[in-house]
Amino acid sequence: MAIVTPEGYQALDEASVPAHLAALPAIRARLGGRPEVWRVREVGDGNLNLVFLVDGPEGSVCLKQALPYVRLVGESWPLGLERARFEWEALVIEHRLAPGRVPEPLHFDPKLYAIVMERLAPHIIMRRGTIAATVYPRFAEQIAEFLARTLYFTSDLGINAAERKKFLERFSANVELCKITEDLIFTDPYMEHERNRWTSPQLDVAARAIREDLPLKQAVALLKLKFLCEPQALIHGDLHTGSIMVTAEDTRVIDPEFAFLGPIGFDVGKLLGNLLLACASQPGHEIRPGERADYQAWLLATVEEVWNGFERRFLDLWRTRPEGDAFPIAHFVGPDGARALETCRRQYLRRIFVDSLGFAGTSMVRRTLGLAHNADMETIADPDRRAACERRNLALARELILEAERFADIAAVADRARIVLRG
Amino acid sequence: MAIVTPEGYQALDEASVPAHLAALPAIRARLGGRPEVWRVREVGDGNLNLVFLVDGPEGSVCLKQALPYVRLVGESWPLGLERARFEWEALVIEHRLAPGRVPEPLHFDPKLYAIVMERLAPHIIMRRGTIAATVYPRFAEQIAEFLARTLYFTSDLGINAAERKKFLERFSANVELCKITEDLIFTDPYMEHERNRWTSPQLDVAARAIREDLPLKQAVALLKLKFLCEPQALIHGDLHTGSIMVTAEDTRVIDPEFAFLGPIGFDVGKLLGNLLLACASQPGHEIRPGERADYQAWLLATVEEVWNGFERRFLDLWRTRPEGDAFPIAHFVGPDGARALETCRRQYLRRIFVDSLGFAGTSMVRRTLGLAHNADMETIADPDRRAACERRNLALARELILEAERFADIAAVADRARIVLRG
Repeated sequence: MAIVTPEGYQALDEASVPAHLAALPAIRARLGGRPEVWRVREVGDGNLNLVFLVDGPEGSVCLKQALPYVRLVGESWPLGLERARFEWEALVIEHRLAPGRVPEPLHFDPKLYAIVMERLAPHIIMRRGTIAATVYPRFAEQIAEFLARTLYFTSDLGINAAERKKFLERFSANVELCKITEDLIFTDPYMEHERNRWTSPQLDVAARAIREDLPLKQAVALLKLKFLCEPQALIHGDLHTGSIMVTAEDTRVIDPEFAFLGPIGFDVGKLLGNLLLACASQPGHEIRPGERADYQAWLLATVEEVWNGFERRFLDLWRTRPEGDAFPIAHFVGPDGARALETCRRQYLRRIFVDSLGFAGTSMVRRTLGLAHNADMETIADPDRRAACERRNLALARELILEAERFADIAAVADRARIVLRG
Repeated sequence: MAIVTPEGYQALDEASVPAHLAALPAIRARLGGRPEVWRVREVGDGNLNLVFLVDGPEGSVCLKQALPYVRLVGESWPLGLERARFEWEALVIEHRLAPGRVPEPLHFDPKLYAIVMERLAPHIIMRRGTIAATVYPRFAEQIAEFLARTLYFTSDLGINAAERKKFLERFSANVELCKITEDLIFTDPYMEHERNRWTSPQLDVAARAIREDLPLKQAVALLKLKFLCEPQALIHGDLHTGSIMVTAEDTRVIDPEFAFLGPIGFDVGKLLGNLLLACASQPGHEIRPGERADYQAWLLATVEEVWNGFERRFLDLWRTRPEGDAFPIAHFVGPDGARALETCRRQYLRRIFVDSLGFAGTSMVRRTLGLAHNADMETIADPDRRAACERRNLALARELILEAERFADIAAVADRARIVLRG
């Protein structure tokens, strides 16, 4: 079946990009010179879109255009172009709430479903960095700030109900990308499905054990229900290390096309899960045994710092900017009231912590048994070595999903990971 | 400040109603005869709208029109007319999901914000019936069916995510009426507020105790958070005994203008809370001591039957019509899978039960200490007798909010009510 696109839409290519951008005065000025001299490269390595980097004599931009199908799979899996508009709107909101933590949004073309934004340089996708065992000393604090500010200021704690419901009204229509998450993360890996794949035959037994693990599937069903039906905040929706670009000094979050009103723990947990999976993959990249031990330690320290930094900032915002309708401050006056409200805050964050561990676990499972895998593991060429890393990753994931409530704090998670993920 | 209304809007009156209805062929045919002979009576005794009953030679209709302010308070409290459209849309959905349990929707005029629907006769508002100690033998089963069907088939259990999110997108805009609930039920009664009132001085101490009860306010804050941020199903939003019309044979739910995607327990609990409040009020209506004991027993039996009937029907729908995206049936195959899924169902219903008790308690508090009181209590002329009933009502409410988790089942709630509410 041929894919029908709206009138005025056409997929851009390296040849047609300059003329398109030249028609936008602010972008043309930013690039400088004449369009003929602009250098254009298509670099999209993701699953869903075209991405062009454009360099002119005076500056550069990045142009991202939605394709009407899942690029990873092909035209047999159509996907609405409208997701580009959600991405644009989420990017603008993130830029407002966490300036400097996303590429600056510059222009949106509603007919081409094309976003023009700041080109990040010399940033690389963080996942490439963790595969190469690169330390990012400012990553934890910067991503914690992104998480705390974007999530707090779109929740019932940071804005009033009318404002939050405008987000809800707007982003509830982003169903198609939510459905991808519902299927690929919360459903397929726990049943037989043609989209699943894993390192076979090494993980056949482990994959089957997951499919037959009823307590695990009960817990995953509750996480899926949260994803479906707990719109705590405007979440990024796909916050893994492939959606983050880094330098030693700077951290930027990209690609919020999965944005919708969902559980706060999904953003936090997906990120923690991907860091833990990166940790699990490290022994597979060793040439000399043990040479990645220090990097594993850095990743686990980062897991701790991300959560602790997020929690501290989120609580600070709640204490200083209680502008939402939940937990009315007028109910909690005086010293006793302040203590009671602080207890509420701690309980709320504890709930998010437990949710985050569960979501972390599901994101670790799906990258091992579902459709989309991570380069962290995929770049381990020897299937036996890869399977050994993946098996440890699955073991930790299962604990995080089933025993989230038992972890007293993030240090306990890191301690457990140190044991389970050791090569 | 004068209230500005959209062009084409004017408040109808008994004189202008016939001409308006005569222009609608289907309504004209239903009423029969010439408009001049139609009998029109304005009977709105609620807080927000005009309600006209229109009788013609061959039939009758009810016309409900939104006013641009809160009728109870006056023009100083403006309220958007758009609520009539939400009411119309919710009524149409309820009629489809629970046919026979709501007045048949006949016509909506988007300029006048006027709904024409079946006129119910000889139904009366149920609250009038409970004040008069009238038994409604079919009420429990019929309202349980309304609750189960409307809530199940708008939840992630009964419809897929895309369908549910269309409801979410549509009804998220009904913020103004949600705000009334947020303020009047979950906020004002627990602090000093000019809108509050109570039987004074008799309840001054009790009202102050509620305002100073930090554990209670912590629990209420969590219920408010659920109301703000747990869109489990399209709920009626105002399901008390004043929103239900009854005969001995028939039960109809009216007035869904507060409809939005909210917690299932809010509908169930508001209803249970109003039945418990009606029970608490009975001693105040006695002429001979003890003459209302049987009716109290009927109300408490009804509380049990409503919950049990709702729970049984909801579970049956889940077992037989699992058409939602939550709890994928493919994860729970075979006898062991079936048992695991049944455990999930029980846990889900247990959560709704606990929520319902909390919401029941908040609706009992607000009718005693907040702006809007119930005729159940207000018609008790002697303030000392009224206060005695209200004090028992508050005591039970507080237990329901604070100790919801401790009640094993609805029979335990009825047992406790039998003790606490005894005159």
